[in-house]
Amino acid sequence: MTIRVAIAGPRGKMGSEAVHTVMKSDQMELVAVLDHREIANSLENYTEFPNTYHVPVFRNLEDLFRTSKPDVFVDLTAPEAVYKHTKVALQNGVRPVIGTTGFTDEQLEELTELSANLQLGAIIAPNFAIGAVLMMKFSQMAAAYLPEVEIIEMHHDRKLDAPSGTAIKTAQLIQENRRSHKQGHPDEVETLPGARGADFEGLRIHSVRLPGLVAHQQVLFGGEGQLLTLRHDSFNRNSFMSGVKFSIEKVMELDELVYGLENIL
Amino acid sequence: MTIRVAIAGPRGKMGSEAVHTVMKSDQMELVAVLDHREIANSLENYTEFPNTYHVPVFRNLEDLFRTSKPDVFVDLTAPEAVYKHTKVALQNGVRPVIGTTGFTDEQLEELTELSANLQLGAIIAPNFAIGAVLMMKFSQMAAAYLPEVEIIEMHHDRKLDAPSGTAIKTAQLIQENRRSHKQGHPDEVETLPGARGADFEGLRIHSVRLPGLVAHQQVLFGGEGQLLTLRHDSFNRNSFMSGVKFSIEKVMELDELVYGLENIL
Amino acid sequence: MTIRVAIAGPRGKMGSEAVHTVMKSDQMELVAVLDHREIANSLENYTEFPNTYHVPVFRNLEDLFRTSKPDVFVDLTAPEAVYKHTKVALQNGVRPVIGTTGFTDEQLEELTELSANLQLGAIIAPNFAIGAVLMMKFSQMAAAYLPEVEIIEMHHDRKLDAPSGTAIKTAQLIQENRRSHKQGHPDEVETLPGARGADFEGLRIHSVRLPGLVAHQQVLFGGEGQLLTLRHDSFNRNSFMSGVKFSIEKVMELDELVYGLENIL
Amino acid sequence: MTIRVAIAGPRGKMGSEAVHTVMKSDQMELVAVLDHREIANSLENYTEFPNTYHVPVFRNLEDLFRTSKPDVFVDLTAPEAVYKHTKVALQNGVRPVIGTTGFTDEQLEELTELSANLQLGAIIAPNFAIGAVLMMKFSQMAAAYLPEVEIIEMHHDRKLDAPSGTAIKTAQLIQENRRSHKQGHPDEVETLPGARGADFEGLRIHSVRLPGLVAHQQVLFGGEGQLLTLRHDSFNRNSFMSGVKFSIEKVMELDELVYGLENIL
Repeated sequence: MTIRVAIAGPRGKMGSEAVHTVMKSDQMELVAVLDHREIANSLENYTEFPNTYHVPVFRNLEDLFRTSKPDVFVDLTAPEAVYKHTKVALQNGVRPVIGTTGFTDEQLEELTELSANLQLGAIIAPNFAIGAVLMMKFSQMAAAYLPEVEIIEMHHDRKLDAPSGTAIKTAQLIQENRRSHKQGHPDEVETLPGARGADFEGLRIHSVRLPGLVAHQQVLFGGEGQLLTLRHDSFNRNSFMSGVKFSIEKVMELDELVYGLENIL
Repeated sequence: MTIRVAIAGPRGKMGSEAVHTVMKSDQMELVAVLDHREIANSLENYTEFPNTYHVPVFRNLEDLFRTSKPDVFVDLTAPEAVYKHTKVALQNGVRPVIGTTGFTDEQLEELTELSANLQLGAIIAPNFAIGAVLMMKFSQMAAAYLPEVEIIEMHHDRKLDAPSGTAIKTAQLIQENRRSHKQGHPDEVETLPGARGADFEGLRIHSVRLPGLVAHQQVLFGGEGQLLTLRHDSFNRNSFMSGVKFSIEKVMELDELVYGLENIL
Repeated sequence: MTIRVAIAGPRGKMGSEAVHTVMKSDQMELVAVLDHREIANSLENYTEFPNTYHVPVFRNLEDLFRTSKPDVFVDLTAPEAVYKHTKVALQNGVRPVIGTTGFTDEQLEELTELSANLQLGAIIAPNFAIGAVLMMKFSQMAAAYLPEVEIIEMHHDRKLDAPSGTAIKTAQLIQENRRSHKQGHPDEVETLPGARGADFEGLRIHSVRLPGLVAHQQVLFGGEGQLLTLRHDSFNRNSFMSGVKFSIEKVMELDELVYGLENIL
Repeated sequence: MTIRVAIAGPRGKMGSEAVHTVMKSDQMELVAVLDHREIANSLENYTEFPNTYHVPVFRNLEDLFRTSKPDVFVDLTAPEAVYKHTKVALQNGVRPVIGTTGFTDEQLEELTELSANLQLGAIIAPNFAIGAVLMMKFSQMAAAYLPEVEIIEMHHDRKLDAPSGTAIKTAQLIQENRRSHKQGHPDEVETLPGARGADFEGLRIHSVRLPGLVAHQQVLFGGEGQLLTLRHDSFNRNSFMSGVKFSIEKVMELDELVYGLENIL
């Protein structure tokens, strides 16, 4: 049985990739897209898509649900409208697959309760790159046995913030499995300030920024006579699509809301 | 409460490291060692050990158990005598921690049954380097989501066999979680034979041998737009001692035989 | 003084990148392009380019040279017409920057002689990625001091041939600086055939193919107690443009033909 | 013709390795050692050495030179006496191979002049690991073409200072070939202080400290669409011996003082 999928934001970078991903899949059917601007009433008339994409376009989400009856609603757009979309989807009996970090705790709680009451699966994930999620999950597990850890994350030099959100998230997960403790020699001295990186409850994070780089992270665990390294390289946006596809299939088996892919891998 | 430990083969490379490891630990007490050659009746008289090591030496294992009443018996020696040692330990109510790959299936079954009947913990592990065991365990887990895998193992150039035992073991664990399938382009051509490495049920293994190297392995998982790499570097023999120490503590909580550290990490 | 540049094949993958590169540069001016098909008479009317690109298009190379008087002619297209283009450029007093591996030895000799007679600089390079060329050059240098070497090259799984052309070229350069000798243990045994990779005069080459990968190579030099690794990662086609830009500037200072960027870096 | 070698400090960690290295070489003969303490008059009577090492021991350097007439004098001991030893060696017509960072500029100048006047080769090197020296030399060369650089150095967690001396030295060499400029995004923000590492004239240095590590450094050069990485791993003290051996042979061909192996590789 094929899964009937609807997607929001088909002209966005992530949304258009999702459109292609679903169109290419044998297990899924793209039954509708949501576009807040009136471009055309079928994807085949968009300049971005081939003229074989006969997929109706809706400007109103409830109309879309009523007319196209999707099983799953995918929304990878910016956070403003996403909360409302997610709620409307659940209320219409459609399982949401949502990619955002922008929900408040209250919003998450409300959606979790709604999903539980309706016994309807939902997935909200800040990161759909399966390899990155596995790196974080394994890092958390490894910290229980090899508690001396440093993180090196590497990104292109147009990135504004350091450390990256993924590095912070990884450090938080690791801390759930090890006690805070200052690493390195107790008397160590930085002859150039900053050499030992940022301190996150004793664990060190280093941020490399260079042109050419995309998004890379390695987590190093040192032990007597050995080193364990967990590394993820994200070379382009497609790295997210394997997780989106996995989630569309997985959400059909769930009867509650799951936050973060690490909890279903 | 300190754990009373006995060790076989105190003059061997692994055994002597184990002696030092236990002597330095606050949670453990080295109550006896087993040496099949008559060198001296206390470790303090061995040239290999400092004269503060007041540890009695036995040539007969049952004498050792009767006199020193250890909780745990550690044997990291060559496989010949180990099977008998393990059995005698269990029969004397002593929990064995054994490092060998040399048991037959029949021997393993018999020891497993004996351990279960006596409800006495036992650990038999081919590899005590916790980092290496985690790399193998994580590789097995990752293969379920990213089934395109290649292994690169790198060792010093005095190693005779290729691929390494760890690489084969890793490939076997991965195959439990993915279907065999030929990787690479269906029409790929080796213009120099061997370039694509060894084929293990479709997965490729590459063995690098260079002077200077010790023992290293990386497992690469490719997906759309991304790469997950799990790497272990073993820089020296001490990498095994963290796992031996962990096992001495862990075996006290077990009431059955466990084969392979991956099952208790 | 700005350098007047003409480019062949503006609709090709490499050619269109070169067009953008030159248009963005302050030191260069794009004075004409050569397109064998009649699309439009200015780049601004191509769908691939913005309407600010006022660059005349020619179908005949001699017309182009006569009318636009470029200093440098860049040709990164397929090898068929390139030999003739290069010759015509030199005969018209225009310095060629050519990216191809397709010339015969006779063609190279003839062009070298022509360039020398005219005292007119020319650059022909199979690889314009400066990082890759440096990796090859350094590999050749290092082999004189650390002659135990293995190469690991890694590409996406749509690549047909193994090893890659870059790996073979690197091995050839290394062999100029070390004697052929079988590496690894003299009695080493492959328990799975191919594990030790391809043999190139004693040096080993390993080819990894995985989805997600782009084009990567590492060259490992082992010595007593140490390892030197030279690695190049090519994440996308832009990696070639830095070398094209460098060559356009460099060819203005040359008065002979140079084959391979490694000879001018 | 074999090279006659004398070595200072045969009981030190580096000195004893040097003794073994020369004893195993076919091209060299160990004709004497210098030991400031009176242990025995031949190495065969030292507990550290096998009884086949028939090498006379001297307490006075001039006696040693007069009696044993070495071609080369190797001194890898602490800096106090080394300056005087080097001078005495040159004055006695013996070529010094010296491993220290401890000379003042005045001492270096005086020794350089003395060596030039006598036309007698001398090598003084802060680092004899050939792989590390090549990494530094290549880094300097690469910076001319790929000027965006970051350094990651990784050491065991008993190291006191960060960054390492090798990292500083590498950064200095790189700066000879690129202009100082702040790297990363002009508006980048550290949400955790230190994340972006230490600033060395705009170039960033990151120092990782973990148990298990030995001494490792990677230098990363980013360019459009590409990354060049130069990495050195030092696994143990033997990594220095290849450079010592190389220097003993090389110093025989020199007629002046060379400071730093990078100038003769």
